[in-house]
Amino acid sequence: MTAESMKAFVMKKIGSVGVVDKDIPEPGPNDALIKTTAALVCTSDVHTVSGAIGEKTNRTLGHEAVGVIEKLGDAVEGFSQGQRVAVNAITPDYRCDNCLRGYTSQCTTMLGGWKFANMKDGNMAEYFLVNDAQANLALIPDELTDEQAAYCCDMLSTGFMGAEHANIPIGGTVAVFAQGPVGLMATAGARLQGAGYVIAVESIPERQELAKKYGADVVVDYTREDPVEKIMELTDGAGVDSAIEALGAQVSFEGCVKVTRPGGTISNIGYHGEGDYIELPRMAWGVGMSDKTIRTGLCPGGKERMARLMRLIQNGRVDPTLMTTHRFGFDEIEKAFEMMKTKEDGIIKPLITF
Amino acid sequence: MTAESMKAFVMKKIGSVGVVDKDIPEPGPNDALIKTTAALVCTSDVHTVSGAIGEKTNRTLGHEAVGVIEKLGDAVEGFSQGQRVAVNAITPDYRCDNCLRGYTSQCTTMLGGWKFANMKDGNMAEYFLVNDAQANLALIPDELTDEQAAYCCDMLSTGFMGAEHANIPIGGTVAVFAQGPVGLMATAGARLQGAGYVIAVESIPERQELAKKYGADVVVDYTREDPVEKIMELTDGAGVDSAIEALGAQVSFEGCVKVTRPGGTISNIGYHGEGDYIELPRMAWGVGMSDKTIRTGLCPGGKERMARLMRLIQNGRVDPTLMTTHRFGFDEIEKAFEMMKTKEDGIIKPLITF
Amino acid sequence: MTAESMKAFVMKKIGSVGVVDKDIPEPGPNDALIKTTAALVCTSDVHTVSGAIGEKTNRTLGHEAVGVIEKLGDAVEGFSQGQRVAVNAITPDYRCDNCLRGYTSQCTTMLGGWKFANMKDGNMAEYFLVNDAQANLALIPDELTDEQAAYCCDMLSTGFMGAEHANIPIGGTVAVFAQGPVGLMATAGARLQGAGYVIAVESIPERQELAKKYGADVVVDYTREDPVEKIMELTDGAGVDSAIEALGAQVSFEGCVKVTRPGGTISNIGYHGEGDYIELPRMAWGVGMSDKTIRTGLCPGGKERMARLMRLIQNGRVDPTLMTTHRFGFDEIEKAFEMMKTKEDGIIKPLITF
Amino acid sequence: MTAESMKAFVMKKIGSVGVVDKDIPEPGPNDALIKTTAALVCTSDVHTVSGAIGEKTNRTLGHEAVGVIEKLGDAVEGFSQGQRVAVNAITPDYRCDNCLRGYTSQCTTMLGGWKFANMKDGNMAEYFLVNDAQANLALIPDELTDEQAAYCCDMLSTGFMGAEHANIPIGGTVAVFAQGPVGLMATAGARLQGAGYVIAVESIPERQELAKKYGADVVVDYTREDPVEKIMELTDGAGVDSAIEALGAQVSFEGCVKVTRPGGTISNIGYHGEGDYIELPRMAWGVGMSDKTIRTGLCPGGKERMARLMRLIQNGRVDPTLMTTHRFGFDEIEKAFEMMKTKEDGIIKPLITF
Repeated sequence: MTAESMKAFVMKKIGSVGVVDKDIPEPGPNDALIKTTAALVCTSDVHTVSGAIGEKTNRTLGHEAVGVIEKLGDAVEGFSQGQRVAVNAITPDYRCDNCLRGYTSQCTTMLGGWKFANMKDGNMAEYFLVNDAQANLALIPDELTDEQAAYCCDMLSTGFMGAEHANIPIGGTVAVFAQGPVGLMATAGARLQGAGYVIAVESIPERQELAKKYGADVVVDYTREDPVEKIMELTDGAGVDSAIEALGAQVSFEGCVKVTRPGGTISNIGYHGEGDYIELPRMAWGVGMSDKTIRTGLCPGGKERMARLMRLIQNGRVDPTLMTTHRFGFDEIEKAFEMMKTKEDGIIKPLITF
Repeated sequence: MTAESMKAFVMKKIGSVGVVDKDIPEPGPNDALIKTTAALVCTSDVHTVSGAIGEKTNRTLGHEAVGVIEKLGDAVEGFSQGQRVAVNAITPDYRCDNCLRGYTSQCTTMLGGWKFANMKDGNMAEYFLVNDAQANLALIPDELTDEQAAYCCDMLSTGFMGAEHANIPIGGTVAVFAQGPVGLMATAGARLQGAGYVIAVESIPERQELAKKYGADVVVDYTREDPVEKIMELTDGAGVDSAIEALGAQVSFEGCVKVTRPGGTISNIGYHGEGDYIELPRMAWGVGMSDKTIRTGLCPGGKERMARLMRLIQNGRVDPTLMTTHRFGFDEIEKAFEMMKTKEDGIIKPLITF
Repeated sequence: MTAESMKAFVMKKIGSVGVVDKDIPEPGPNDALIKTTAALVCTSDVHTVSGAIGEKTNRTLGHEAVGVIEKLGDAVEGFSQGQRVAVNAITPDYRCDNCLRGYTSQCTTMLGGWKFANMKDGNMAEYFLVNDAQANLALIPDELTDEQAAYCCDMLSTGFMGAEHANIPIGGTVAVFAQGPVGLMATAGARLQGAGYVIAVESIPERQELAKKYGADVVVDYTREDPVEKIMELTDGAGVDSAIEALGAQVSFEGCVKVTRPGGTISNIGYHGEGDYIELPRMAWGVGMSDKTIRTGLCPGGKERMARLMRLIQNGRVDPTLMTTHRFGFDEIEKAFEMMKTKEDGIIKPLITF
Repeated sequence: MTAESMKAFVMKKIGSVGVVDKDIPEPGPNDALIKTTAALVCTSDVHTVSGAIGEKTNRTLGHEAVGVIEKLGDAVEGFSQGQRVAVNAITPDYRCDNCLRGYTSQCTTMLGGWKFANMKDGNMAEYFLVNDAQANLALIPDELTDEQAAYCCDMLSTGFMGAEHANIPIGGTVAVFAQGPVGLMATAGARLQGAGYVIAVESIPERQELAKKYGADVVVDYTREDPVEKIMELTDGAGVDSAIEALGAQVSFEGCVKVTRPGGTISNIGYHGEGDYIELPRMAWGVGMSDKTIRTGLCPGGKERMARLMRLIQNGRVDPTLMTTHRFGFDEIEKAFEMMKTKEDGIIKPLITF
């Protein structure tokens, strides 16, 4: 059989990207081949190209894509060709020890559920392969657009996880550090988890505005005032029940530990990309006896969660498309990627259509 | 009314201790006055005298004591004079916001449930006052000696908390870093919480031996081999489900993060006494996305927990008196305290009788 | 000291009510005396007068009231005369074993946190006494009206608890059986806990309309269609993740068990007032192996929770005053009570002002 | 390819069993074929033959077996022919919505993880097929005998689940109703979960004795005294923190609800085989407001849990072989099955070797 070819947006080597021709992959017994219809560009791809996870020669980028089932492996049941599906950024195998323990994002090894662009080709291509398709393909309801569904692949799943891990008591107080797309969804998630008062930390005006639309009661501009002091003031000195770190930086992580009440939870969703250590402020951490908890996690996947995330959009609980600041065809993918690198023109998320 | 006087072992000022005369205190409406019968000396008092929590002029030391009810406040119900009682090191008021949230050890402020020697006189004295006595007095069953009950005040409560917070799956693997008296009780606690394999880290032979008696399957001597490497080897490269930090040092905290599996829990019970920061190893922490959880806590108090801890001793689940290496009368308290400072003669816990 | 007198609305004996003169009570050391400003009438008082909890001669009714601090016991700290406060229907002592275990509504004995009208005089009177005031008095923010605050005493606390106990996954499906005031707040609570699809079961048009305002996506009228069949149809045969029983009847409890998915939770908040047994349908319960969980509970109290509930109103998350269908002065209390018995004129909650 | 034949012990029809010849099955891509070496007979097979789950013509019985890998499907990785493996009674596919929700025993449909003998041929045969083998095959450590490993398939997994679901506080009180093999493992599990006082309910002397060996502090003989009254007396009127129902009968379920404290948990592991309803005693259930929780579940499977259960045996935490009262070759399987029906000769578990 002669494989047909397709266009794929790849990391040629560290620091270099481009569109290349690749063979359309052939699904194994538990795989599915998807014809891509829409995708979102993620800042983590920018990190990957910068070398954050090492040299990945000619690796297709992308992990937030939806499409149509083109071909199914022999052992995949319950799906059929032509169905519209969304695929989470994380595609576990659901059979390894870590999956069986319930930590599917840590499939086989730490962060091992993250396969697209990390351990195999991603999905910023005309076609892409989904492993363990029976669990990883999520049917898109007719009422949802491709764009809406694409936001469930990472932005909603990761952002909402930030709130789910934060152990927010009903009516509790929450601080969300940084309002990039994942932080914005953490803010929306905090509302969906019952927060009574949500403080967003952000300096960019467009993101401040979106933070309010997604449910922040107040936005603290860290360029104008010390966010830790301000959050303590806003909470009458008590601190917050829960703090969500959505940036991946020492300053915001440290801020989270400081503003969290004894007994409260720091939920980390930011990717900490630099340094050998992240530092815990000893006194704010109560010398290790404060009953503060630090949770971490990685975008939970699987069709069942994806169905719940899509239901939230369908029933009007959240509209992620407010974050789509730019739209491009796949032939303009290099331009879109460049903009995500420079963050020019107030870009938040660019939608790529195929 | 003329107050009678009693002997109390105090921190005169930073670096200096001694026995002084004090007035026997008078209970307020919710208090109880206890006539001390037995007490244990804790290393944290050594830290206190070294200045760890600031200058405390003439403050009575001690927080692990049992005795007999001498006098009850007017509003205290359900107890009567002459009953034998144990009082946890932590005596919350159960009425503040933090208590109502369930974090009684953080009463009113961070670590604020810790009142003995920290916020008011401790109980290394002939008499001591218990605030909120109705919740903080725990009746000692006839079957228990004073010595056994005294171990519930801090050693069992803190050590077992380490295991309770560690989220140990039944049959799971646990590493306990350091086998001082609290670490030994964390080892015993790991067994009581269903651990299938317990690795203790310790170098002192007497403590290694006790660790095995309390349930360690294997003891790693960190002076002979790298404990992180050894624990990874002992777990076939998987790491442990749960790691318990019972020392309060960078090296052991960092080791805990490194040996814990993705999705596992690091349970901190060590008091981190030095430095501005405790450092999290970034890669072992999965760049903040490993699903690892870090829990902290402070000796949970209250009569209901105390009753459960005493029940475990009464029904043969654990024998803490193996840790009593030395015995003194109260008139020898200065010597006992000095030994806890030097750790001479293989001392683990000295029992003081009145 | 000569006690002054006040008006109180009492259950004279089973089946008979009226306003009588009583002495204004005197607070003990841990009590507070509150001058009532507003109160809500609850259907459970109707049950009480019918004899549901036995003969209570001359017992003052009422458990949903707010007011102003008139006098404080000597041992109460952190409050002062003249402050506006709300008091939860449940007033635990926070010192008994059950409170220390975290089940404050079960203070000392089963349901023992429920003291107003049950174990002592209620608060449908010009003044009322609050036990353990330091934990049970909740300051009302200036931004809140007495009416808004009064809803936190039982309606929000119980209704939201129904959702909190229901273990709703984010975006999950929830069915709420019955939309009386507590059921309506369970519907609002399900939204606050992240439900993606809320099905309310109700037949009365005014309550159906309110259910939609409080967040139901669809309302099933059980007089027109079988609610179990309809809910299974609305969920494509899967059933719901969580079902909330807000009526206290065999038919709705049984319906909850039947519509809940394997692994899902049935959260009971209805008061089951009749019969020796409530029946679990064996097959729908999976012969006891379905991984279905049945939770129960009783209106959680305490100032910390009250503050969170009031915050939710203050920040616009919920407006309970939509349920105030009628308003009366205290001199019309007998009429209001009679209407709650007959449920005439579409009454949901009548507000009583003093 | 001509299939070879093997001997299989089948339910010919309701009420009739026998050994027949069947083709050795051929594994699909995700399956494994196991050559059986040892198996245990379970009372639930007796129920199946009695018609409890309907007519199953010529269905192979058995769900507690270990063996050697004979052949692997093409898509199965990480295993090789000749390895010794144990297979849990429950073999989920780990890809359906219920599995992804974490309720693997409810795979696809309620109780749908239970496939052996229920939905396909069981494993009381010379060979058996394992679906989704990569997750369902558990390697047996060299240190374990086949007999020891076989107990993990159902007895340990179900019994321990009873304790894991029971939410036992450390040092808490537990009652286990009925001490058949699953109840005995619930007793052992209660100890492994930290129970401070375990009350077993049982009348058969051999089982009473085993209950004590497995950790019961006291055994109540329900034929000599009312178990509810006795348990209340043994707990000084408080009732137990947790009750485990290991029989599947109205009387024991009702007893569990009655002896459980407010806020406590009733953990059901008994298979309720009769009647349309199981009845909840209304008053003991606190009219639905007692904070009592009722959990249910079905033998959790998967290689990761199996490894933990085998570790507990390997490291001396529990010795299930005390329950092996009889031993037979596979040629005597009909006799063994008949004895499980009559329960003659004090039989608890018969081991079948191949």
